[in-house]
Amino acid sequence: MSSPDAKRLKTDEDDDAAPYELIYWPRLPGRGEWIRLLFEQAGVPYIDHARTPDTAYKTVLKYIDPENVGDATNLPILAPPILKHGDLVIHQLPNILLYLAPRLGLAPKEGNGVFLLNQLVLTLLDGFVNEMHETHHPIATSLYYEHQKPEAKRRSKHYLEERIPKFLGYAQRVLDSKASGGRTWLYGNKLTYADLVLFQCLDGTNFAFPDSVKKIQESGNYRSVFELYKRVKEQPNISSYLASERRLPYGEGIFRHYSELEEDVQIKLPEPRSATL
Amino acid sequence: MSSPDAKRLKTDEDDDAAPYELIYWPRLPGRGEWIRLLFEQAGVPYIDHARTPDTAYKTVLKYIDPENVGDATNLPILAPPILKHGDLVIHQLPNILLYLAPRLGLAPKEGNGVFLLNQLVLTLLDGFVNEMHETHHPIATSLYYEHQKPEAKRRSKHYLEERIPKFLGYAQRVLDSKASGGRTWLYGNKLTYADLVLFQCLDGTNFAFPDSVKKIQESGNYRSVFELYKRVKEQPNISSYLASERRLPYGEGIFRHYSELEEDVQIKLPEPRSATL
Repeated sequence: MSSPDAKRLKTDEDDDAAPYELIYWPRLPGRGEWIRLLFEQAGVPYIDHARTPDTAYKTVLKYIDPENVGDATNLPILAPPILKHGDLVIHQLPNILLYLAPRLGLAPKEGNGVFLLNQLVLTLLDGFVNEMHETHHPIATSLYYEHQKPEAKRRSKHYLEERIPKFLGYAQRVLDSKASGGRTWLYGNKLTYADLVLFQCLDGTNFAFPDSVKKIQESGNYRSVFELYKRVKEQPNISSYLASERRLPYGEGIFRHYSELEEDVQIKLPEPRSATL
Repeated sequence: MSSPDAKRLKTDEDDDAAPYELIYWPRLPGRGEWIRLLFEQAGVPYIDHARTPDTAYKTVLKYIDPENVGDATNLPILAPPILKHGDLVIHQLPNILLYLAPRLGLAPKEGNGVFLLNQLVLTLLDGFVNEMHETHHPIATSLYYEHQKPEAKRRSKHYLEERIPKFLGYAQRVLDSKASGGRTWLYGNKLTYADLVLFQCLDGTNFAFPDSVKKIQESGNYRSVFELYKRVKEQPNISSYLASERRLPYGEGIFRHYSELEEDVQIKLPEPRSATL
């Protein structure tokens, strides 16, 4: 027998049998895409609200409404992506990934590995998502790109010449570390959610700045990073997903292609780091 | 008897007896400050490398050196703050807070509360740290403020008129939620690390933009947020800390005071949200 009280007293373990629901803006991959990749790689079914665009909009708007103060056990939501799992409703991309990864077999369930992977994912998302967004919106999210274009050009030049090499260099350094276990995967010689995160970061960056990524790849400085990208892409479940209609095309999201933003860029890469593995 | 093998096989629990070490740039509070506040509130001793500035610089530089690929169990470090606890070395501010808070009695040790608090902390750090940094460096971290001043003025205006109200409104919404348990603390009617995070966010914002924060506070729109700020400030351990020499003055860090950045700002606050608790 089910009663409201019984429902409220559910433990976390009870949620594990509940379906996973991804609630995000429809019609673009956006920040929802990292979450989709975890489900797809794990082969775990999930309800993706973006498949029904009209209701998806309304559902997102309902959650982020300033009048919506959550419920007895959940806090209010500022912005999507949102994950609903049983009675739990959470937001913030790295937080949702942290919740899902051990449940989907893509991270250790306990121990220090949880924190090592989380720091890696936070760093990748800082470099390739948060800073990427600033390349086309350096002044304000509330303004159109066209109203901040000179600033976007200035910012993109610095981003491509300084920041992308910094973050790719970091990923290569992680792959070169003993803790990666041999340059195949980022941590522990095993595919984890951090590898999926890096894949999507690089895939989106390549969509936004194809000429720069080509030059960067051809330099050979970040060889293991690009090899990992290819390795993730060829995972059977990922490969099927990418070929399916479930994979939405890029558009007006975080990753945008404005060719003028990489026009005057001079990629000057540092000498490759000495191999230290 | 201690052998290298025994050391490598240490479990996480063994680390709990080890001292906590905060490794961060000396001479400014910066991103290290949120970590200090957790230790100070908990009354737990910690080694703060910033107290010995010369060696602190060298230690930070050693960790972030591109040639440093970590060790057998730890991944490389991109940037400070860094936490060393026993054999574990981690970075990324929200990750360090996530690790420390349950150990210091400032967050639940398990269950969904971990994720509710983490999402809250990530959101506050997005709004008041990451976006704050962009107000004085909207083009590039590598350029001086003086070389991106017109852009900084434009960005700051949008930040103060649109983003600060958004994030303060979110904090007020959290306090209005049932899950906060009565507008005293952000979650579960108990002081957690999220409250300390909000305190430091608001304290730094007030240093950077005092005129704007004064107007925002006087509006009465975010009453519970400012009350929480005061409540944290008056906690005995926090109050002693703030009065001590251990609390470093703000300077050229995330929170910077350039009066020209709030000159042309028109704070237009929305109507207060209807109380829904």
